[in-house]
Formats: sequence, structure tokens, C-alpha cells
Amino acid sequence: MTMYYHDILYDGANTANATAAAATQPTLLSRSASVTYFGQIMVFDDLVTAGPALSSEPVARAQGFYFYDRKEAPNAWFSFSLVFNSTAGRGTLNLMGADLMVEKTRDISVGGGTGDFFMARRRHAADRLRGGPLLLQAPDGHQALRVLRRLIRPYSTTSHTS
Amino acid sequence: MTMYYHDILYDGANTANATAAAATQPTLLSRSASVTYFGQIMVFDDLVTAGPALSSEPVARAQGFYFYDRKEAPNAWFSFSLVFNSTAGRGTLNLMGADLMVEKTRDISVGGGTGDFFMARRRHAADRLRGGPLLLQAPDGHQALRVLRRLIRPYSTTSHTS
Amino acid sequence: MTMYYHDILYDGANTANATAAAATQPTLLSRSASVTYFGQIMVFDDLVTAGPALSSEPVARAQGFYFYDRKEAPNAWFSFSLVFNSTAGRGTLNLMGADLMVEKTRDISVGGGTGDFFMARRRHAADRLRGGPLLLQAPDGHQALRVLRRLIRPYSTTSHTS
Repeated sequence: MTMYYHDILYDGANTANATAAAATQPTLLSRSASVTYFGQIMVFDDLVTAGPALSSEPVARAQGFYFYDRKEAPNAWFSFSLVFNSTAGRGTLNLMGADLMVEKTRDISVGGGTGDFFMARRRHAADRLRGGPLLLQAPDGHQALRVLRRLIRPYSTTSHTS
Repeated sequence: MTMYYHDILYDGANTANATAAAATQPTLLSRSASVTYFGQIMVFDDLVTAGPALSSEPVARAQGFYFYDRKEAPNAWFSFSLVFNSTAGRGTLNLMGADLMVEKTRDISVGGGTGDFFMARRRHAADRLRGGPLLLQAPDGHQALRVLRRLIRPYSTTSHTS
Repeated sequence: MTMYYHDILYDGANTANATAAAATQPTLLSRSASVTYFGQIMVFDDLVTAGPALSSEPVARAQGFYFYDRKEAPNAWFSFSLVFNSTAGRGTLNLMGADLMVEKTRDISVGGGTGDFFMARRRHAADRLRGGPLLLQAPDGHQALRVLRRLIRPYSTTSHTS
């Protein structure tokens, strides 16, 4: 299953459309070393859609933060929640991990989930995500985050959630 | 099991009592759009007690951060540890997720635990938290965080912790 | 298995060597109360080596952030990824939790992993880390982070990753 996220950075003039903004400036180390934004923190509330177009069916919001963490080249680390309230399900998936920008496809861990994504609860919702890893893709194809489905696929056929 | 957390924000004059403070200002996007504090990061070390009164029995500290992440209305995302050193146990529970402010009760994921809360270790401590989900409640009733107990309830009867 | 991490803070003059820098200043609460840096956020991309010397065999990078979160004494909270690309394996381990500075050895939770560290996949890589908990140690011995191996040790002998 592939979804598309739209990270629209605030540029000073796009208040109506922007979904992400800088919470801090790059650190002094970044400014002394290069233009890799080392230490800059961004907060976002990005729309996630079923197709690559911004106007296609809304599936979720991606809410969280990332920061740049490499001196020699751009690289990031992030943690966010996919907040679903659509036909894909209701609930959240909480993700975290290194965003290794040199790799075209990066794997992220699922740290937990709630609602339809809380372990084995409501299996049919999980089933819908089970065809393979969930792929979060930027519409321009520049970035693909593969969400590993540890918590999407129930780890056992017996219930531990009661 | 219900516990009460006391988030006392620093206001410039309450140094002795404050347990939380702003690490950043709201972003420029927030200032251009509304008063939802988009992107502002708060760090806290809140007291958690057994009863709603600040003076009731201390149970844990809630140590971590949150930030506001919505342009149209207040909404947040947070990650923190419940640090227990009391009759409730010794160790930490690490939590993360979206703090969806439009919902009266919000579910948070447990990303891991240590000490008494490390998986199946020392079952009796886990048992004490097992009557139902752990509920973290603000004394004024405005906010209730339901801690999902994936890691509180051992996922297996055989030990994987040795 | 013990590894050594080298957190070299930017001091204004060590651009070439620094691997960590302050993303924010301490909060106003910190400045009014003490010198515990309450609320200051640091971003890092630290080298992790097999031996205590900075020049010994590189094993991983520790990429993430921490912040100070106590008013009365130094204390921190952090979340980061160990990014492996060495004989120890390929992939990431994602860690989070309270960094309780009063304790000489602190336990951290594993919130997830990717690549060789994604659950039971490629058991031999996991086996290599299995002799005991992974210990992340500062070369000067001041700090030892014990990485709890929930995800390092497969929770089951049957595969759930297909």
C-alpha cells in the first residue's frame, strides 16, 4: 500500500498552504561548517493522500518533527504519527528513526499504534495494510519511507490486548 | 489505575513551582496564521501523584517534551518517560504519540520500558498496573491520557528477558 | 558487547571535530533557577567505536537528540538511532528514554529496528549482539547506556517478518 505525503514548508508567504515550519535555526556548528542545516528542527502536520496529487483522497495526517543531524551532508532524524481518520482506518501509527538521505528508500520503525492500529485489535483494518510494507512517498518521488509493519502485522494469533 | 500529572508552566514568576518551560518560541508560520503556537516546543519534568491534589502521594515523574503542531487549532505531539521510584514500581515507561486535543481521552503508545516495566520482568509490578489501561489525568479533568498497556502486559508466558 | 560513543560538543572553535551542537538555548526557567540547562536541546551525530579510543574501529553512528529536563540537577531525555554499517551489521536500532544522570548505568528502551535489527530477520546479525545487553559507554567511563535487547533478541522462534 502506497500513500503520498505533502510536506509544504513555510516560506514566509504561503501561510494558507504551508504544513511545516522551522522551530529553530540551524546551529552555530552548521553555520560554521556548511549548509547542511545541522541541528535545525522542523515541525509538520502534513496531508497524506491516496494518490500523488495534493487533491487526491485524504488518507491521514503525518504529525511530528524532524531535524537535520549531519555536518558533511544533509541527513535527518524524525519521529511522527500517522493520524488516520478515513476509510483506511481510525487511529494512529507512531514512527521513529533515522532518515538516511543518501538512501533512496529508507526503513522506519513503528514504535506503537492506537485504535485500529493497536496490535491485533480489529484485524480487518490491519489486514488492509498487510499486502506489504506501507510506503510513504513524496509526490515528486524524491523520498520513500517504508514503514515496517511489526505492529501492523499482529505478532501472534492469540490476543494479548484484552 | 489512574494517576494525576501536574504540568506547571513557567510564567516568568513561578520559578520555585514551575515544572515545564518553553524551549522555543512559536514558529513564524504560527505567528502569521493564528494563535495555535504551531511549532513551539515545551520541555517538562512534571510530578505525577496518586490523587488529584498536588500534595497527594507522589507516584512518578513525567519527563519529556511536547510541541504544538496544528495551524488551525491547538494540537500537540509528545514523547516522554514516566519515571517510577515509588510503591508503584521502579523503572520507566516510555511513551510517544499524537496528543489529539479535540478528543477528550487520547490513547498513547508505549514504546518501551525499563526496570519493573521491562516486559515480563518482575510480574507483580506489572500486575499492579494491569487492572485496565493506565490513565494519566490532569487534576482539572481537561486532559486524560490513556496509556495502552502493550508492554505492561507481558506478551507471552515464557520469558525472553534473561 | 560494549561500544564507545564520542560526543564532541561544538565549542565555537572545533568545527572539524565537533559531532554535537546546541539547537536551543536553556529556557528562561533554567536561567532563573540554576545552571541545569533545563530545556536546552542538543542534536548529535556521534561516532561509535569498538574501543575507547576515538581512532579505534568504527562500528556505528549515534544520530539523534537529547535535552535537559530537570530544574534541581542535571538530567536528560533522549531519542536516537544507532546506524550500523560495519561488520557489526547493517541497519538501525531506535532508542528512547530517560537519561537519569544520577544513576551510573541507565537502561534505555529499543523502540524498533531496521535491516539486520528488524526483529528476527537475519538471525546471525542479532546473534552477534546477543551475549548480553549492548552497552554504550563514554570513553571516560562517565556514562554507560545499557541498551535493553527486546528487539535484539527475537521474541519468537517463528518468523513474523515475511
